[in-house]
Amino acid sequence: TTQYRITLLPGDGIGPEIMLVAVDVLKVVGKQLDIRFEFQEALIGGAAIDATGEPLPSTTLEMCKDSDAVLLAAIGGYKWDNLPRHLRPETGLLALRAGLSLFANLRPAKILPQLIDASSLKPEIVEGVDIMVVRELTGGVYFGQPKGIFTTETGEKRGVNTMAYTEAEIDRIGRVAFETAQKRQGKLCSVDKANVLEVSQLWRDRITQLAAEYPDVELSHMYVDNAAMQLVRYPKQFDTIVTGNLFGDILSDAAAMLTGSIGMLPSASLGAADPGVFEPVHGSAPDIAGQDKANPLAQVLSAAMMLRYALNQPVAADRIENAVLQVLDRGDRTGDIMSPGMNLLGCHAMGEALIQV
Amino acid sequence: TTQYRITLLPGDGIGPEIMLVAVDVLKVVGKQLDIRFEFQEALIGGAAIDATGEPLPSTTLEMCKDSDAVLLAAIGGYKWDNLPRHLRPETGLLALRAGLSLFANLRPAKILPQLIDASSLKPEIVEGVDIMVVRELTGGVYFGQPKGIFTTETGEKRGVNTMAYTEAEIDRIGRVAFETAQKRQGKLCSVDKANVLEVSQLWRDRITQLAAEYPDVELSHMYVDNAAMQLVRYPKQFDTIVTGNLFGDILSDAAAMLTGSIGMLPSASLGAADPGVFEPVHGSAPDIAGQDKANPLAQVLSAAMMLRYALNQPVAADRIENAVLQVLDRGDRTGDIMSPGMNLLGCHAMGEALIQV
Ligand SMILES: CC(C)[C@H](C(=O)O)[C@@H](O)C(=O)O
Ligand SMILES: CC(C)[C@H](C(=O)O)[C@@H](O)C(=O)O
Repeated sequence: TTQYRITLLPGDGIGPEIMLVAVDVLKVVGKQLDIRFEFQEALIGGAAIDATGEPLPSTTLEMCKDSDAVLLAAIGGYKWDNLPRHLRPETGLLALRAGLSLFANLRPAKILPQLIDASSLKPEIVEGVDIMVVRELTGGVYFGQPKGIFTTETGEKRGVNTMAYTEAEIDRIGRVAFETAQKRQGKLCSVDKANVLEVSQLWRDRITQLAAEYPDVELSHMYVDNAAMQLVRYPKQFDTIVTGNLFGDILSDAAAMLTGSIGMLPSASLGAADPGVFEPVHGSAPDIAGQDKANPLAQVLSAAMMLRYALNQPVAADRIENAVLQVLDRGDRTGDIMSPGMNLLGCHAMGEALIQV
Repeated sequence: TTQYRITLLPGDGIGPEIMLVAVDVLKVVGKQLDIRFEFQEALIGGAAIDATGEPLPSTTLEMCKDSDAVLLAAIGGYKWDNLPRHLRPETGLLALRAGLSLFANLRPAKILPQLIDASSLKPEIVEGVDIMVVRELTGGVYFGQPKGIFTTETGEKRGVNTMAYTEAEIDRIGRVAFETAQKRQGKLCSVDKANVLEVSQLWRDRITQLAAEYPDVELSHMYVDNAAMQLVRYPKQFDTIVTGNLFGDILSDAAAMLTGSIGMLPSASLGAADPGVFEPVHGSAPDIAGQDKANPLAQVLSAAMMLRYALNQPVAADRIENAVLQVLDRGDRTGDIMSPGMNLLGCHAMGEALIQV
């Protein structure tokens, strides 16, 4: 029996209910394939603020480090929206990324044929779309120094953030991206704003140099404004996209929304040494929390991603992903992906359906 | 007879051919309404680099200042793509914006019923979309200091840009946005990344304070990643959007692409004292330059925007906008907006069609 220690971070809003489903699914697959999971739960986000006064208690970070992988659900909610920055749920998420040096964020945006009508785009535009956004996650304007709100000589306030990347930071995310593209269709599009920003110029130079080491990958460059357009116009042109922290935040959400069903999309955040964090792309949906209405499939697919990328258990990952496709094939739907003639299920019932296929 | 001095900046690629059409249309409308235009032409972008070695010669800036309004076509092309930054066409555009203090960029994204099928989104999603993006244009990460590529203590290169806004910069673009919303549906959505960036936090604070002066405008706030999603998911929720330079660059292009016909979209860049610049949203399309294939309608509509916003000639503006709708109604199309059963026209012939309606 192989055994893994998994830290669970249910967080806020719908987090706890979708996490329950993912854990149930993992247990069943584990039993089938002789994999043992030892689950340990910890606090993050609003739940952690309420219990401890901090969005990422140090015990949580220690537990994460002391595990094979971290499964996160979602954080945030209206309740904590107006607290000062150091007391906000998002600050806990940023601290987790920094604390585990999770510099690579992998966000797939893949359209499922069963859900193609959920897209706001025409079916012929989104059919077959399968994009992987590789987003740098511990640098850029999210973390650059100096930052803050300063008072100028004239007594006026000035808000400042610094968008910066070093060569080493660009190289390490670049390598992840080229390797990701190698395992996919071999096409990598690097997105920047090199016609205006010096930080992007360095980015483009380094990515171009790295390309020499990956002759099997076809590299292109695109400005971020054009990339936002092209995602809307003709998303099938993209295979793998690599970009900085802020551009990746924006473009991965736009790409996710092309599918029309962000309740289906998982993501992975990976570092060099510490365990990776796996979480849905969607948020904590406080408006439907606790009502058994949430779609648990992105959380379940995040568990599959964890099996594939962190635990090297591709058979278990395949089994989960196939179960998701099967319940969709037979017409099971949660409210967010419901359409006429399908079976409407709650969060818990969707979990039961997955376990029974 | 009212007389205006207009500086024409045809620029590169398809710029000169679409500018010719706009000038012809202005002359005809001027004759009809007893408005005289004195046109003076100047160099910018690649054309200026080739002729003078600089993307914005000082004579061009002087001519612009010494006029009632500036009509710009498009700049850039493959030829100048690999020159050092100070010799690139884009640098000329940024220098023009800074030189005329054009802090407010108005970019409408309005779907025309005649062209609804050109959109990659479903007709029911984009029908009736009418968004105005008010983008700050002379601040933020485009101009913030320090910037450059520096060498760190360890001998490594680090690319740096600074995203910064002062209260005064936020207030002046905020006022333009509130006033714009007042003239539209009275809904203003301010887009930022206040959950991560201090500069956005100051932005949100100031915009919120300004709202007290505009009780007739309904203000909301949205994070930029969510805004990119919502534009794709349900664009009709937006009326007026206000945001910083970089977010505006990205979101206005995404919004433009929702219409499926960016060859139709004009824009205005306005300052406090110097003349405004009016230009199409699309680029210089070097691949079709000089082939009489370009769509001149965005350029023509930019001239209409100039009449409306800079010259206070709403009747003339209406007349031009109506002419555009009429040629579309009778089925005239350039290649970029062509669909089965319509009449394919070249750039020049489209101009003739406009003049004859
Ligand atoms: C919640 C926020 C800090 C976060 C980010 O901006 O990275 C989120 O938008 C995401 O993309 O994971
Ligand atoms: C050409 C470039 C410098 C410019 C910008 O980024 O502002 C363009 O994309 C635009 O939106 O007008």
